[in-house]
Amino acid sequence: MLPKTIELKNKRVFLIDQTLIPKELKIIEIKNIEAMYNAIKTMIVRGAPAIGVAAAAGMALYINGLKDKTTPIQKINKAGEYLISARPTAVNLSWAVNSILQWVKKQKDLPDMQKNIWAYVQQMADDDEATNRSIGNLGADLVQKNKKVAVLTHCNAGSLATVYWGTALGVIRELHNRGQLKMVYADETRPRMQGGKITSWELIQEKIPVTVITDNMAAHFMKQGLIDMVVVGADRIALNGDTANKIGTYNVAIIAKFHKIPFYVAAPVSTIDFNIKTGKEIIIEERGAEEVTTINGVRVMPQGVKVKNPAFDVTPAELISGIITEKVVISGDFLTKIASIR
Amino acid sequence: MLPKTIELKNKRVFLIDQTLIPKELKIIEIKNIEAMYNAIKTMIVRGAPAIGVAAAAGMALYINGLKDKTTPIQKINKAGEYLISARPTAVNLSWAVNSILQWVKKQKDLPDMQKNIWAYVQQMADDDEATNRSIGNLGADLVQKNKKVAVLTHCNAGSLATVYWGTALGVIRELHNRGQLKMVYADETRPRMQGGKITSWELIQEKIPVTVITDNMAAHFMKQGLIDMVVVGADRIALNGDTANKIGTYNVAIIAKFHKIPFYVAAPVSTIDFNIKTGKEIIIEERGAEEVTTINGVRVMPQGVKVKNPAFDVTPAELISGIITEKVVISGDFLTKIASIR
Repeated sequence: MLPKTIELKNKRVFLIDQTLIPKELKIIEIKNIEAMYNAIKTMIVRGAPAIGVAAAAGMALYINGLKDKTTPIQKINKAGEYLISARPTAVNLSWAVNSILQWVKKQKDLPDMQKNIWAYVQQMADDDEATNRSIGNLGADLVQKNKKVAVLTHCNAGSLATVYWGTALGVIRELHNRGQLKMVYADETRPRMQGGKITSWELIQEKIPVTVITDNMAAHFMKQGLIDMVVVGADRIALNGDTANKIGTYNVAIIAKFHKIPFYVAAPVSTIDFNIKTGKEIIIEERGAEEVTTINGVRVMPQGVKVKNPAFDVTPAELISGIITEKVVISGDFLTKIASIR
Repeated sequence: MLPKTIELKNKRVFLIDQTLIPKELKIIEIKNIEAMYNAIKTMIVRGAPAIGVAAAAGMALYINGLKDKTTPIQKINKAGEYLISARPTAVNLSWAVNSILQWVKKQKDLPDMQKNIWAYVQQMADDDEATNRSIGNLGADLVQKNKKVAVLTHCNAGSLATVYWGTALGVIRELHNRGQLKMVYADETRPRMQGGKITSWELIQEKIPVTVITDNMAAHFMKQGLIDMVVVGADRIALNGDTANKIGTYNVAIIAKFHKIPFYVAAPVSTIDFNIKTGKEIIIEERGAEEVTTINGVRVMPQGVKVKNPAFDVTPAELISGIITEKVVISGDFLTKIASIR
């Protein structure tokens, strides 16, 4: 069994350092909000649901450390803004921080917050796992009981992208448990290779069959009939179903459509941004050039080369067969159905 | 100006070692047919037209070195088979070797062959460059005179994939010369990164504007309207227009079609395999797993991970706006038109 991505113990916070996977499984302690900001920014912790809970834990560290009892709410609000600024695209980050801010307002005073915050964050972590198991079940139910399927996934929407179990990989784990999984095809997911490094590692740990392919191979295997369905995670979903996810997801959605292969998004309701109507309103994070030009510390491209590095893209709702949430699989008229589960 | 990819000088053969680009521009001498087989196999020389001429030069080295005058034709035929087996997909390899074998049959005896082979191979090399310049002109003519365009290319169909000038990059060079090139978007082209390493390097040498993107980003930029046309090379073209090219080309063709962006193949007539009706008959070379799992000598993926590594895919003719040859741009009814240029 994999360790949890985020662990709370006696008011201390521990994370798996995902930048070291697959070379090493190392659990590090995060001691303050600055260290948590840095962990989110540098992707020591990554994956929309995981950075949500990690940010909440960062808020707990901050609140726990407050000594000056004057204007705690203002200070906590500011700390929340700071954490949200670490990564702009995944809505779970602001969702989790805002949950904490709402909760804070309901507490009597600072000592009360400090007494109760850890239980609140632990509940968020437990909820995340329960949510993922529900997503896994509802997603696996989409496959006919007598069928075995090969599933393509992009990036890592696995246990390591959540507290535990995973969203897209939650569906895959459940299919495996039911004896209905033939093979996982994992896009390596350049530039950071979360598929080649993290998804592959995570599945190998549990002896789930996985084949890594480069991002440009999927269409070739789809044409050969080797892929039955696609399941990916999400970083932000608009009211109309447009979905921001790791760069390359939009590409996969187009080629799946071309081959008439169902394309599913697996994500908790907390990934839905009820404040935006379409994907056009989603801010796409642009990350550093060195993620593209340099791999594992080795420069592979010519000096001075110009590159682009958007971390996400937006898949329009019309390419999505369904959004698998913990409550229901949404499909068809996304706008009405998403609004109704708020 | 770039050096020629393959240079013949006083019965000696020199190649740019492309495995060292962009780190180093090193020209190495190939001294015998075994060394040429190895250079083709390990991609010291790569690109369909380049491996054609390189193989012809390898045959010249072999013929030149023959001392035993008995049954030279049988020996030369066998040497040809050996070279063709280095890489199965690109038809230019067998086309060039077979040209040599046909030519050999017409010579009086071994001394005659040895006297004349170098001029014959030099002519092939010169023809390749002339062919590419013609492809460049015909391809650039596809763009309206008053327009500037941004062009996406995949892999390297450049000067380094040919003797000189390039096929897809021949079109791009000509557009640049005409002042009609806004930007080249170069897919990095995993696993071997010919786009990120070779195309980028080649264009930077000539100050042609280039931006490298990972293979999964193109759809995102197409949606934003940043890409006006796609031009790629080819390794083998069937009579119906189906085109084998570097893995990921099929993917690009699908997403170009989805965004209504013209998708062109630039290749000499020698890339057409007049013996096969459709792409289904094309053998796809599967290369070693380490090309995917290990980058520049650094292992990036978990030990024991299963990967796939087909070197090519086949783009069906219906996704191709036109095939730019040195004679004519073929479009529409490929079957009739390809048959007519034989």
